[in-house]
Parts: sequence; C-alpha cells; structure tokens
Amino acid sequence: MKQKGLVQIYTGEGKGKTTAAVGLAVRAVSRGLRVCYVSFHKDPKKYGSGEQKILKKIGISVRCFAKAHPFCCKKDEDINRLAGQCRKGVACIRKMHKRQLCDMLVLDEINICVRDGFLAEEEVIGLMRDKPENMELVLTGRGATAKMIKAADMVTYMKEIKHPYKKGVKRRKGIEY
Amino acid sequence: MKQKGLVQIYTGEGKGKTTAAVGLAVRAVSRGLRVCYVSFHKDPKKYGSGEQKILKKIGISVRCFAKAHPFCCKKDEDINRLAGQCRKGVACIRKMHKRQLCDMLVLDEINICVRDGFLAEEEVIGLMRDKPENMELVLTGRGATAKMIKAADMVTYMKEIKHPYKKGVKRRKGIEY
Repeated sequence: MKQKGLVQIYTGEGKGKTTAAVGLAVRAVSRGLRVCYVSFHKDPKKYGSGEQKILKKIGISVRCFAKAHPFCCKKDEDINRLAGQCRKGVACIRKMHKRQLCDMLVLDEINICVRDGFLAEEEVIGLMRDKPENMELVLTGRGATAKMIKAADMVTYMKEIKHPYKKGVKRRKGIEY
Repeated sequence: MKQKGLVQIYTGEGKGKTTAAVGLAVRAVSRGLRVCYVSFHKDPKKYGSGEQKILKKIGISVRCFAKAHPFCCKKDEDINRLAGQCRKGVACIRKMHKRQLCDMLVLDEINICVRDGFLAEEEVIGLMRDKPENMELVLTGRGATAKMIKAADMVTYMKEIKHPYKKGVKRRKGIEY
C-alpha cells in the first residue's frame, strides 16, 4: 500500500463496530492488502467458530488476547491475569509494527481494554502514534477516550437509535456473534 | 434459522454502514446461514472486484441494481432508467421473500434509493413488512426516513465525529472501496 495509512476508531453503544471492522478487513483483502486482525476480550472458542473462521479462510492473520472479560464472560476471571494478557497483546502489536507485517491492522475491542482499566490510555495511543506510516489502523469498542479520538484521523460513533435487547431479545448466533 | 429474524438499519453520514453489513454477512455465513447481498447504486465493475468478490467466494449470492448514481458516478445517467432498475431490484427481492431463499438479506444503500426518489418509501417499508418471519433483513445507506426507522427493530446511526475527507484525503482503494 503506497498511500498513507490512517487511524480509524469505531466506538459508541450502537451495533456495528466489530462488523464494520470485519467488513473493512474483507474489503482490504479483496484489494490485495495484507491484513491482521487482533481481538481482545473475545473467547476464540466462541468467536473462532464465527466470523474469525472466515477471516482466517480468506487469508487474514487472526490473534486473540485476554480471551475473557469479567463483565460479560467469566465473573471469577482474575483481573491481573487478564491485564497481563492485554499487555502481551500490546507487545505483539509493537512487534507487528516493527516488522511491518501488514497493510491493515484491526484491534477489535481494544477500546474496552482502556475503558475497563486493562490497558493504560497512553499504551494504546502509543500504538496509534508509532504505527508504520502506510498501515491503516482500526480500533473498535465502546469507550474510546477524548485523547484517543484526538489522536485518530477518522472516528465514527455508532449511536443506538433502537435496539431490541431492550425488549428482551437475546443475542443470536449468526447475527450477534 | 429457527429464531425470529429482525429488521436492522444502518444509517447516518459516518463511515461503517456498508462494512457493518459486509461483516454481518460474513458472520452469518460462518454460522451456516444462507445469505444474499443486494446492492443499489454501486457499479459492479468497481465494487465487484472489491468486497463483493470475497462475498461471492465465501458462498454469498450477490446482485447489483441501478449500477450508477447520478450524484456520484455518472452525471449524465438517465434518472428514469435508474429508477426502473431500482424497481427491478424490488421485484427481485419480493421473489426472494416469496421463495425464502435466504436467512439473511442485505440491501446495501437501499436507503439512498428512498432519499433520492428512486424508490417510494412505502415500497421499501413493504419489503420490511413482508419479509419471511425467520429472515434477518439489513438495510444500509444515508437518509433512512422516520417511517423506515419506525418499521425497523434495530437502528444504528453512524455519526461522523472526525473525517479526513474534510482535510482533503481522497477515497482510497482497499479502504473506502
């Protein structure tokens, strides 16, 4: 990719953040770009059989860190252990930056790591600032901070106008995960 | 798909509407759902070599109607001809509804058809109302009307917080299309 890469953030409480990142990854691969997809707080046993399976199939490198989240997956998960796994993710991303292994890098739910204190805001802003010039970097998840938004080039807020969960509709396999 | 299907709308001026729909399609296919993807106002010569190529490759049926838009593609495009092509799209979707050919149906940029007068609001609301019960229907594009939002189950507004086009960055192959 010859063009300058930007930093994109998808945040907000509405649906479509992770799926937008998946769609971006698919589009980039379709044009011959090298894509890496790193997810945080998502159990590969659950998500690995979903969209991540297809991403791998079409040639995208997929990595998962902090495979659980105490608020949604396992109530008894060790917070310090999870924070350590998030930091391992950051170390891995820094290596990817250094080796310039991809043209697009998706960091799915990394905003959550900051929101919930698993990563320091400065660590994630460092990943944005130190990315290879030509790499497109995509961050998703609720809770992007004002400083993260300031450091990004393109930010979309997914605003929930209407959501059936409020009417008691549960998360559905194939649609929500 | 045994579960009841919903109607989802992604609208607003921010980035991520089409990519969210592409991501949903990928997720659904990964779980064994049958997915159809219908796009409006997108030239398959341009988009067919991008994300739509991958969608076909992973088993999604892709159709394109009204392959241009007078505001963005061809200034001299015949408006009536385009409107006729949009109505052909509606007729095709009605057939798909009747035959229950898919578990998820994406109607990419169909909101634009309504916004710009190529389809009547009532025609699109009819497609929402008359969908097979188990089918998930996903509509994208700027300009979803209040009535369309009322008829949908789940609506996300992509709000543009920051966009580099305003700084003169042009649309980039592999990222924006």
